[in-house]
This record gives sequence, structure tokens and C-alpha cells, in this order.
Amino acid sequence: MWAFINNQFVTVDQAVLPVSDLSIQRGYGVFDFFRTAEHVPLFIDHHLDRLRHSASVLRLQLPYNNVELKNIVRELIRKNSLSSSGIRITVTGGNAIDTYTPTTPNLIITQSTLTMDAAFDPSKGLHLITEEYVRELPTVKSINYLMGVYLQQKVKDSGASDVLYVKNGFISELPRSNVFVVTTDNKLLTANEHVLYGITRNHILQIATSVLEVKEQPVSLTDVLNAKEVFVSSTTKRLLPVFSVNGNKVGNGNTGTVTTDLYQRFLEMEHQFIKKGW
Amino acid sequence: MWAFINNQFVTVDQAVLPVSDLSIQRGYGVFDFFRTAEHVPLFIDHHLDRLRHSASVLRLQLPYNNVELKNIVRELIRKNSLSSSGIRITVTGGNAIDTYTPTTPNLIITQSTLTMDAAFDPSKGLHLITEEYVRELPTVKSINYLMGVYLQQKVKDSGASDVLYVKNGFISELPRSNVFVVTTDNKLLTANEHVLYGITRNHILQIATSVLEVKEQPVSLTDVLNAKEVFVSSTTKRLLPVFSVNGNKVGNGNTGTVTTDLYQRFLEMEHQFIKKGW
Repeated sequence: MWAFINNQFVTVDQAVLPVSDLSIQRGYGVFDFFRTAEHVPLFIDHHLDRLRHSASVLRLQLPYNNVELKNIVRELIRKNSLSSSGIRITVTGGNAIDTYTPTTPNLIITQSTLTMDAAFDPSKGLHLITEEYVRELPTVKSINYLMGVYLQQKVKDSGASDVLYVKNGFISELPRSNVFVVTTDNKLLTANEHVLYGITRNHILQIATSVLEVKEQPVSLTDVLNAKEVFVSSTTKRLLPVFSVNGNKVGNGNTGTVTTDLYQRFLEMEHQFIKKGW
Repeated sequence: MWAFINNQFVTVDQAVLPVSDLSIQRGYGVFDFFRTAEHVPLFIDHHLDRLRHSASVLRLQLPYNNVELKNIVRELIRKNSLSSSGIRITVTGGNAIDTYTPTTPNLIITQSTLTMDAAFDPSKGLHLITEEYVRELPTVKSINYLMGVYLQQKVKDSGASDVLYVKNGFISELPRSNVFVVTTDNKLLTANEHVLYGITRNHILQIATSVLEVKEQPVSLTDVLNAKEVFVSSTTKRLLPVFSVNGNKVGNGNTGTVTTDLYQRFLEMEHQFIKKGW
């Protein structure tokens, strides 16, 4: 498998960073992640734009513009010859002599066989627990997943599938997914702040306007518990229904019609993207 | 310069981690840092115990016991032949195939010429700004310094020296230091929770009992602003006086007698440790 570091393609065993890199020293870096299907990197422009936003907030200078990044990605896809895959672009704080101050970033692009978290299966849904937490600098896709990784054990011990962050009664997101609520009066709600603006999230918002009323607004845990349907979205999950939160059944405790409909429409959007090419 | 990775000494240019390491992927890892003086690693047992605590909370299995770690440190000090230095032991989440779940940790020990942040100079003090924030898992010396590194620009733009974290009116710590308040009625206060239990902090608490009344308790920003003296402590700072917070002069705006006294006593404690050897 080939990877790309800074200015060259290397085999993945040579994809290493010096321990002075600020990601290792201080967890300081950003990344983005997208899938390829039929050798096409899905919604790559949106992911590159978000990477650029993340890097900009953390004052990390991206060494390439989007066209250059896309050329590197194109070459990586060609060299690795994986049809369906995940591609991750990481931009770190660089080799910091003082172990604290960002310097020229290290850029790493890796490609791997993709494991989708789960295929959409209406008979299966997520069981969530909640945790009082809100992510730092939430619009930035930083590499800081300290709480997400840490909470895995609690999720496992609870027999749950994942954790929903709640702060002062309002929900934000899962460690790696956005959350949507379909209300009993058929509105689609999703948190308007304290979240990463997921690419799948944004596409769902766009698709959903032709199906039901859509509102980006503060969403409370009560909204979730009173919902008709709840689902999460992410690049590796597309849409997945939520069946329970803290042991409380959500809606009917199974996959709702709006979730299924939006999932189908999102799939179609992906197919259109692939057909169009890039 | 020599470093140590997992099970071998390597030259520092070979001190690298694969990009699949969970520190690079998810900012997941812990570390500890101590100084050496006259080839003696100061208070090493305290630092190793804290490293063990940090690793344990994040469920990272340290591959060596304290005796073994001290033998490696002893050999590193011998090989590098630096009299005064900083030694950092980092333990990461390891090479994570799924990019999310901790696995066998990578252990890295590096030694570098030490730059003390500043020598104690009674004519110089820190000027702090405050930020509404509390560190995640504060008793763990994790590598997550996202906010600390991010806020450097704000500190610089404010013409300040560093940032003090405040949450709901109560202070916790600086990104890399603890904070002490000497009240006008001669009590020494320091936050009892939401902080990293600094090794220097703990020694100051120990030393100070013979000088004045000592209280570990919640400390408000008002306590700081009404203080007779404020100082910070850390391994690389020892004790440094604070002269102002958000532009407000603290105490007389210069170095107080308690701060100076405790600094001298801490220096003496260091000297005794070096004399005793390890």
C-alpha cells in the first residue's frame, strides 16, 4: 500500500513521523476522511474545504491547494488500485523544537480498505448512552478524540453501541457522527452549533428539504427522547437508526420511514456523484 | 542524541512512530516530563507514579515497572552525557488498525537540553489572561494540549505571558502550570480539583505547611484578584510570580515575600534530592 508524506509517495511502512511532531507531543493536528467508491473519492471538494477550514482555525498552513491535493489523491488511488477505500488526509503541527509551538506542518495521506461501520439494515439500530461533554473547537476536525476513545470502555460496559454528547440538557453529536431527530409533527432537527459540520450531515439537510421541514437549532435530550425517529450520520455510517438512548426506547424502537427514505435518497446522491465522476 | 523506543535505544533521527499510532490518529496518549540536574533525574519516582496513573486511567498498559524504567533512564543519561536536561516519557495508544481502539502502547523516552521557561527573577512576573475552559480528564497528563497550543496566539495578541483556565468563576490551572494564591490573611490556596496534580505543586504544598496555613480547595477568580500574591509552579518553571490577570494588578504587582521564601525552600529541596542521589 502506498501513502504520501509531505512531498513524496512512500510505502506505508515508511509512513512515519518523528516523535517531535506536535501530534505526538501535544495532540495538535487536523484531518479529514472520505470514502472512495468505484475509484471515485466521494464529495472530495467538501472534505478538502473542511480540511482547509480546520487547518485554518488551528493556524496550520496547508502546503497544497485543492487542485494539487486532488492530483495527489488521484495518483494515490491509481497506485493502490483499491476500488472501495477510505482516504485520510492528516495535517499536524509539525516538528516542534520547543515541543509546543506549531511549525511547518507534516502532511500525511493514507488509503486503506474501507470497513463501513455498518451497512444499513432496518432491523438493526444503535443503542446510545449519554455523556456530559462538548467537544473543544467543535467545527474543527482536530485529532483530539481523547474523550471518544476513552469512553469506548464505558460504552462497552453499558452494552451500548456508542455515546451521545450532552451538555446542560442539549445534545451535540457522537464522537464520530452527527445526530438527527424526526419529531412527531414531522420536522427534521439537528444541532446548529457545538458540532462538526459533517459532510453527510450537510447532504442530508439538503436532501431532506423536499421531504419534510428542516430545522438547524438547539436540540435537547428531551427532543431526542420524545422523537418519532432518531438517526445518526457519518461518512462511514451514511445513516443509521437509533433505537434507544440510556435504555429508553426512541420512537417505536425500530427504523422509521423518514430515516429509510432519507437513506435511499442519500444513496442515490452518492450514485449520482460516482456517475458524474470527478 | 539517543532516545529509547519500546525496547531499544535509537539515535533521535530514528525515533519515529508509524502514522497509524493512536497519538497521530486520535491524540490518544500520556506522558510525563522531568528535569535532570547533575545527571540526577529530579523526583523521578513521583513522575513515574504519575505516568502510571495517567496510563492506567486511559487503559494503556505500561510495558515496564518503575525499576525497569529507571534503569532505562539511567542508561539514557549515561549515553547522552547531558548534565542538565529534560526527559520525556511518552506512552501512546499504539498502532491502531481500526484507527480508534487502543492497542499495545508505543513507549518513547527522549532527552533534550533543557530550556527552563524562565529563571526566577523577582523583577519579572507573568501577565495572565483567562479563558473559560477546563481540561478533559485533568488528573491525566494526556497529550491533549489542543486548547493550550491553540490559545498561544491569543496570549501573544494580548501581550500576555500565559493563560489561566477559569470555569464558572473558579480557576483550575494554566496549560502547563499549577496556580497558587496567597491571601491577605496569609493562607496558601490552590485548587483541589480539575487540575493536574503537579509534582512541583505537591512539593510546594509539603514545604509550605511550615510557613503558613495551606488549603487545597476551590479557588475563585475573585480569590486571585484579591490575593496578596499569586504564583505558578511547574517542572520547568519551579515557582514564578504572577503580576497581573486580565490587566488587573495582582497584590502589589511584584514578587511577594511568600513566593520568594517558598522558591528558596523548593530550590533547597532540589539540592537535597541531588545530594542524596538516586
